[in-house]
Amino acid sequence: MISYRQEIWFNVPSRRAFINITGKVAKCVAQSRVKEGLALVNSMHITSSVFINDDERGLHHDYEKWLETLAPHEPTSRYQHNLTGEDNGDAHLKRQVMGREVVVAITNGRLDFGTWEQIFYGEFDGGRRKRILVKIIGE
Amino acid sequence: MISYRQEIWFNVPSRRAFINITGKVAKCVAQSRVKEGLALVNSMHITSSVFINDDERGLHHDYEKWLETLAPHEPTSRYQHNLTGEDNGDAHLKRQVMGREVVVAITNGRLDFGTWEQIFYGEFDGGRRKRILVKIIGE
Amino acid sequence: MISYRQEIWFNVPSRRAFINITGKVAKCVAQSRVKEGLALVNSMHITSSVFINDDERGLHHDYEKWLETLAPHEPTSRYQHNLTGEDNGDAHLKRQVMGREVVVAITNGRLDFGTWEQIFYGEFDGGRRKRILVKIIGE
Repeated sequence: MISYRQEIWFNVPSRRAFINITGKVAKCVAQSRVKEGLALVNSMHITSSVFINDDERGLHHDYEKWLETLAPHEPTSRYQHNLTGEDNGDAHLKRQVMGREVVVAITNGRLDFGTWEQIFYGEFDGGRRKRILVKIIGE
Repeated sequence: MISYRQEIWFNVPSRRAFINITGKVAKCVAQSRVKEGLALVNSMHITSSVFINDDERGLHHDYEKWLETLAPHEPTSRYQHNLTGEDNGDAHLKRQVMGREVVVAITNGRLDFGTWEQIFYGEFDGGRRKRILVKIIGE
Repeated sequence: MISYRQEIWFNVPSRRAFINITGKVAKCVAQSRVKEGLALVNSMHITSSVFINDDERGLHHDYEKWLETLAPHEPTSRYQHNLTGEDNGDAHLKRQVMGREVVVAITNGRLDFGTWEQIFYGEFDGGRRKRILVKIIGE
């Protein structure tokens, strides 16, 4: 069994953003030399997500608007979590809707994807250095 | 290490539906000959889900109604994504609530499930051929 | 390849609660002797969740309040599922928002976590004995 580990770092200047990380994960898969296995890609933070969907600007706008409806950032007094001095209560909720992690099959040394599947880092509390983990096991 | 890969295809005539795929996934596990391992079951599309819950008709009605409340199909002009000519903006949102994938333990050559766990394909933009991936690794 | 399996049981007296299970899962990882691999932690029930977020009381209050807004317990007649004689229709919906499972990397024999990541059991229909599964594979 081969195992492989890599961190990928981000510093998103805005509070929220969706960043396509498919190329970076594919590079990890190539480096791992795993031909058949599983790749786990997860946020190492609790106010950001890793998820798979379409790389389409209109859709990302729709996600942004929808998540703000489900869990608005303001008023920040809405969240008891913000009594700790944070203002990111909403980000912890948005992250649950979009998910912490994806597990992707590796087949013939590549991410085994449908036509439109792309991996995204979803930032909901930016303006600081944050990272994701890529862990691959297989043969 | 053994690895196994299978696609399962669907062509759901209605826009939305929940289809129990537990038997099909169990068949994959048997074919894989894996006794101890993990099975990844994921949609290869971005407007459908794979999830685990109860096979109960009333619950599926509740999910349908609830998801329409959270992310209504109409008016389709509600979603910028639909400016691309699609009308499935809502399906991309519904899929995030229900999830892309499940990872299931395999123990003694079987899906290691609680009493009521059943695997479903959740279609939110039917009327076309779509598929899921079953990838199994183990021994 | 090593594989390891453990069930962890709960009996939450209240209807809903969030319980930090990080220590229990870490103990499983140690017992498994896996140094490099993946740990799957999933609810074996369909009205409870396993998820990763912050161990902060205010946040848990926010989750509780938010999930009640998204999928209220009452009136129980709101859910067709409750026609079966159950009153837990809401719990099946809440569980989808919070998720069934997490997959966590194991590196150097430990849960490979960011600073604030903690694993929780989320109960949405307590008052009975329920369990989660920890399945570990690796080397």
